[in-house]
Amino acid sequence: MTTVPPMATHPAELLAPYLADVEEALHGALKEFTEPAWLYEPVRYLFEGGGKRIRPILTLLACESVGGDRASALPAAVAVELLHNFTLVHDDIMDSSDKRRGRDTVHVRWNQSAAILAGDVMMGMAMRLLMRSAHHAPKPLDVIDAFSTGLIEVCDGQALDLAFMDRDDVTPEEYFTMIEKKTARLLEMSVAIGANVGGATNGRVEALRSFAREIGIAFQMQDDILDITGSEAFGKSPGGDIVEGKRTWLMLECARRVREDKEADPDHSQLIALFFANNGIARERVADVLSMMGTYRVVTDATALVEKFTLDAFEHLHIVPKSPARDLLEVLARMLMARSV
Amino acid sequence: MTTVPPMATHPAELLAPYLADVEEALHGALKEFTEPAWLYEPVRYLFEGGGKRIRPILTLLACESVGGDRASALPAAVAVELLHNFTLVHDDIMDSSDKRRGRDTVHVRWNQSAAILAGDVMMGMAMRLLMRSAHHAPKPLDVIDAFSTGLIEVCDGQALDLAFMDRDDVTPEEYFTMIEKKTARLLEMSVAIGANVGGATNGRVEALRSFAREIGIAFQMQDDILDITGSEAFGKSPGGDIVEGKRTWLMLECARRVREDKEADPDHSQLIALFFANNGIARERVADVLSMMGTYRVVTDATALVEKFTLDAFEHLHIVPKSPARDLLEVLARMLMARSV
Repeated sequence: MTTVPPMATHPAELLAPYLADVEEALHGALKEFTEPAWLYEPVRYLFEGGGKRIRPILTLLACESVGGDRASALPAAVAVELLHNFTLVHDDIMDSSDKRRGRDTVHVRWNQSAAILAGDVMMGMAMRLLMRSAHHAPKPLDVIDAFSTGLIEVCDGQALDLAFMDRDDVTPEEYFTMIEKKTARLLEMSVAIGANVGGATNGRVEALRSFAREIGIAFQMQDDILDITGSEAFGKSPGGDIVEGKRTWLMLECARRVREDKEADPDHSQLIALFFANNGIARERVADVLSMMGTYRVVTDATALVEKFTLDAFEHLHIVPKSPARDLLEVLARMLMARSV
Repeated sequence: MTTVPPMATHPAELLAPYLADVEEALHGALKEFTEPAWLYEPVRYLFEGGGKRIRPILTLLACESVGGDRASALPAAVAVELLHNFTLVHDDIMDSSDKRRGRDTVHVRWNQSAAILAGDVMMGMAMRLLMRSAHHAPKPLDVIDAFSTGLIEVCDGQALDLAFMDRDDVTPEEYFTMIEKKTARLLEMSVAIGANVGGATNGRVEALRSFAREIGIAFQMQDDILDITGSEAFGKSPGGDIVEGKRTWLMLECARRVREDKEADPDHSQLIALFFANNGIARERVADVLSMMGTYRVVTDATALVEKFTLDAFEHLHIVPKSPARDLLEVLARMLMARSV
C-alpha cells in the first residue's frame, strides 16, 4: 500500500480565508457609500484595482493571536485598508504619479479634486468602521488612539520624504526615520488596532507593534532593492527610483561611501552630485549607477539588513504565545520578504 | 443726583471668555506639533490667519447648556476648529482660491503638496484632541461617531457643490441639500460633540443639532446674500459668486423664476443661459444680474428665508432648559445673522 505524501500548503492558501473575509467586508462597507456618485466612484475604483490587503490581514491575525475573535476586528481591518488607500491616493497627487497597480491614478482618470476628496472621505469612512470594532474592545479609545497616531505619523513621514527632495545631505539614518513613519507606522497601527480589539495586554500590543515596525522597515528596504534588481517582466523598469531621484537607503549609503572614499572614481562622484542636483539620473545612465552600487556593495548590505530586520521582527513576535495566528503572522512576514514584485 | 444708566454689554463681550479659552487651547495644541516643520508651519499659518471660531464656541456652549463643564469639551472644540480648517485648506485647492482671510492660501504660499498634507494631518490632530474630551463623555464613541459622520457628510457636500458646476439644471431644493451637508453639518457636529461630552440626553442632542442645522442654513444663505449686497469696504467686490458661477439659492431661484416667466425679458433669459454655459458672468455684467435679481425679488425672499430659518432654530433651542449658555447660543446665532461681512 502506498501513501500519498501530504501536499505542502502554499503560504498564500493559509492566508486565503483572511483575505476572503477582508474582501467581503470591504465590499460590504463600500456598498454603504454610494451618493454622491461623483465622490464614491473613485473610491470604489481604487479598491477594484486590487492590493495585497497586507494591513487588514495583519489586523485580523493580531486580534486572533491575542485570543480575540477576528470577526470583531473585521470592520477595523477594513478601516486600516481605507487609511492605507487614503495615503496612496493623496501621495499619487503629490508625487504626480500617473499609474497605480497598472491603472490610471484617480487624479488622472477623474481630476485632482476628485482625488483629494476621495482621500478625505475615506478617512471618515475609516473612522466610522473603526468604531464598530472599538465597541468590542475593552478600551475602545485605545483603538481610536492607535488610528489617529498612525494617521499623524504617516503624514509626518510623507512630509519628511518630500522634504528630502530638496536636500543633498540626507543621511541613511534619516532614511530610517522617514520609512519608520511613512511605511512602518501603518503596519504597527494595523496590529495595534487588532490587538486592542482582541483585548491584548499592553506588553503584547507593544511586542506586536515592534514586530510590525521591523517588518515594515524590512518591507520598504526590500521594495527599494526590488526597484534596483527587479525585472521588466513585472512591468517595472529597473532603477525607477534612481530616475526619480528618490532618497533610498541604497542611494544614500552609496553616496556616503563614495564621498568618504578618498580614491573614489571621479565618474562616481559626479554621478552622486548629478543625482542630488537634478533630483534624478537620466534613464540611460541608470546602468552606471547600478554598476557604482555594485562597486560599493550597497545592494548586498541592504539585503543583509532586510534579513536582520526580519529576524529581529520574529524575536518580538515570540513574546506572544504560540498559536496558529502567530504562525500566520510569521508566514505573512516571510511572504512579504520573499516577494519578487 | 444723576445715575449713569448701565451700559448694555455688547454680545461679542459675552462670548469673549469662550473665544479666549478656544484660542489658548488651540495654541497649546499647535505647540504639540512642530516637526517636521515643513508640515506644521502651514498648519500654524492657517490659524494665525484668524477666524471667528464659531464652531468651537458652539461646542463649548452646547456642553454648558446641558450642564457639562466646558473645560472638558475644550480639546473637542479645538478638534472641531481643526476639522473646519481642514475643509478650508483642501477646498481652496479644489476651488483654486488664491486668498483666504486676506492672505495667500497655503497652496499658493507653499505648494499644493503642503496644502494637501497639512489638511490630512489636521484630521489626525483633530482625532487625537477629540479623544481627550471623549474620555469625559458618558458615551465616548458617540463623540467619535458625531465627528466621523460630520467628516463624511462635509465631503459629500463639497462633492455635490463641485458636481453642480457641471450642471445647468440644479434646483433650489438641491441647493439646500448641498449646504445642509457642506455648511450645516459641521455646525451640527460642533454642538453634538459638545452636548455628548456634557452628557446630554439624546433628545437634547437632537434639539441642539436641529438648532445648529437651521442656523447653518441661514448662515450660508446670509453669506450668499452678503456676496450680492456686500460693500467693497470689506475687501469683497459684490457679486463674486456670480462671476465665479456659484450655484447659490439666489441664482438658482432667479433662474427658475425667469424660466417659468412666459413674459421674461429675453436679456434675462440670455443672462441665465450665459451663467450656466460659461460657469459665471463677466464682471461688467454683474450689475445686469443684480438688476434681474431685483426684478424677481430673490434677495428679498432669501432674506425672509434667513429670518425663517433663524426663528425655527430658536424654536429647537428652547427644548433645552433655559440657562446662561443657552442664552449665549442665541446671542451667537443673532450675531451671525446680523454680520455684514
